[in-house]
Amino acid sequence: MANLQFSVSGVSRSHSEIAMSVRGFEFAIDEPAELGGTNAGPNPVEFVLSALAGCINVVVHLVAKERGVQIDGLRVTVSGALDPRRFMGDPSGPRPGFLSVELVAEVDSPASDEEIDEILAIAESRCPVADNLGATTPVLLRRAAVDRASVEA
Amino acid sequence: MANLQFSVSGVSRSHSEIAMSVRGFEFAIDEPAELGGTNAGPNPVEFVLSALAGCINVVVHLVAKERGVQIDGLRVTVSGALDPRRFMGDPSGPRPGFLSVELVAEVDSPASDEEIDEILAIAESRCPVADNLGATTPVLLRRAAVDRASVEA
Repeated sequence: MANLQFSVSGVSRSHSEIAMSVRGFEFAIDEPAELGGTNAGPNPVEFVLSALAGCINVVVHLVAKERGVQIDGLRVTVSGALDPRRFMGDPSGPRPGFLSVELVAEVDSPASDEEIDEILAIAESRCPVADNLGATTPVLLRRAAVDRASVEA
Repeated sequence: MANLQFSVSGVSRSHSEIAMSVRGFEFAIDEPAELGGTNAGPNPVEFVLSALAGCINVVVHLVAKERGVQIDGLRVTVSGALDPRRFMGDPSGPRPGFLSVELVAEVDSPASDEEIDEILAIAESRCPVADNLGATTPVLLRRAAVDRASVEA
């Protein structure tokens, strides 16, 4: 199977808000007021945590289906903490991103806890988002010539 | 400054869709039909790319302000490709996540290209999302006891 390609695009609305466009879905990313934003939507790092929750939902159901395990309900909570110093420009801080990410899955299933634990471990190993967080991913950033019609907020 | 804590939660609606709740913001994550979903929202890996776009918007503006550089407009496009084999359970594939992530920034500014390139490089080094992708982040996954009222779709 060929690689799957994904692409998203956003236009800055302010120093904190960006209007995202993803296959026709439109949504705002912003910072809350206490982080200097206008709170038009969840912030970037909350979308990282949400992406992991969404990915685990998909892969848990996929792995459970392969094993003939019924899933009657699933709640996923994802949390993380980061030190804002490097982000704010203070080089004395540790890494700018989440120091770690913790995911808690409440899985309602007739299967045993052991079976569910095994499904969760397999799901983590096959989840694209968990992989991009847990292992290094090259991030290539470059400037392109400006198309003024496309960048004005 | 104390660490900043972030937490999000979602309830599975189906094998592909999860209803996310983030500080009162509600949104769906789903897979498109061609990936077996019901297309109620962007998919998990598109939210990863979007998170990077949102983070770069914030940090570019922050760094530009520190340097007295005016930003008149910014469009951010983020792309990535992944091989779905490991995700689908075929161990012959490479890593399940994005092999790399590419970000293109169109920055409308009176500043020189060299100044903008420098701002972009600094922004990348201070962006929490770029850090969580570019360096390894421990992902801790565990099962919790089910609260039936909280997990039913």
